[in-house]
Amino acid sequence: MSPDEQAIREVIAEWLRASSAGDVDAVLRLMTDDVVFLGPGRPPMCGKAAFAHGMREWAGKMQVEATHEVREIAASGDLASCWVTLEVRMDAPGAAPVVRRGDVLSVYRREADGAWRIARDANMQTLAS
Amino acid sequence: MSPDEQAIREVIAEWLRASSAGDVDAVLRLMTDDVVFLGPGRPPMCGKAAFAHGMREWAGKMQVEATHEVREIAASGDLASCWVTLEVRMDAPGAAPVVRRGDVLSVYRREADGAWRIARDANMQTLAS
Repeated sequence: MSPDEQAIREVIAEWLRASSAGDVDAVLRLMTDDVVFLGPGRPPMCGKAAFAHGMREWAGKMQVEATHEVREIAASGDLASCWVTLEVRMDAPGAAPVVRRGDVLSVYRREADGAWRIARDANMQTLAS
Repeated sequence: MSPDEQAIREVIAEWLRASSAGDVDAVLRLMTDDVVFLGPGRPPMCGKAAFAHGMREWAGKMQVEATHEVREIAASGDLASCWVTLEVRMDAPGAAPVVRRGDVLSVYRREADGAWRIARDANMQTLAS
């Protein structure tokens, strides 16, 4: 496994850990300032501030468990693509659990400090229950 | 605009032209052999042969019109990412037109012959009518 692939796998693992822990600041460190999140049937979510606002709505209010499989990572220059199959289960008190499952295609960028961060994210998960 | 960005814009334009014309072979030339197409609620479509099989099902049987806006292209080394907003209208005789609209995030790879080709594609279009 190349050092780039290893570094990106660590970003993914840290992302899932920090998301489950509701640690907004730790998640924000893993994305570029100009990050864009895309998904079906909704407008693009652009920028770190928009993500932070969204995550603070639910962080700490529900339990989040994620399982993932890295299907592929390819890096060249300062750009990398990563395909992950992801299942996320969200449990809020007094509500039925929500499970979302599907493929995620992300583009990572190596920034000036040498760290790989998520820059573009296409989340194709759908409701599984 | 960089030569890489210009080349990728030409791939997109040719893709849409060849799709509308039902020209399967021309579309196939624009993708890598190991191409993967991802979308919400469906299994990954892997490889050029799978795409060709799918396109031959509809090519020539319906009229396809696409309008697109390139939101962004970023290239580094032999990898590039491209975000496009795409609307596709498909008209089959005797059926109501189908319009799909949404974001597409694609990863392009520069291959040994110097040509940029689509390698990974995340299509987040949803039915608009």
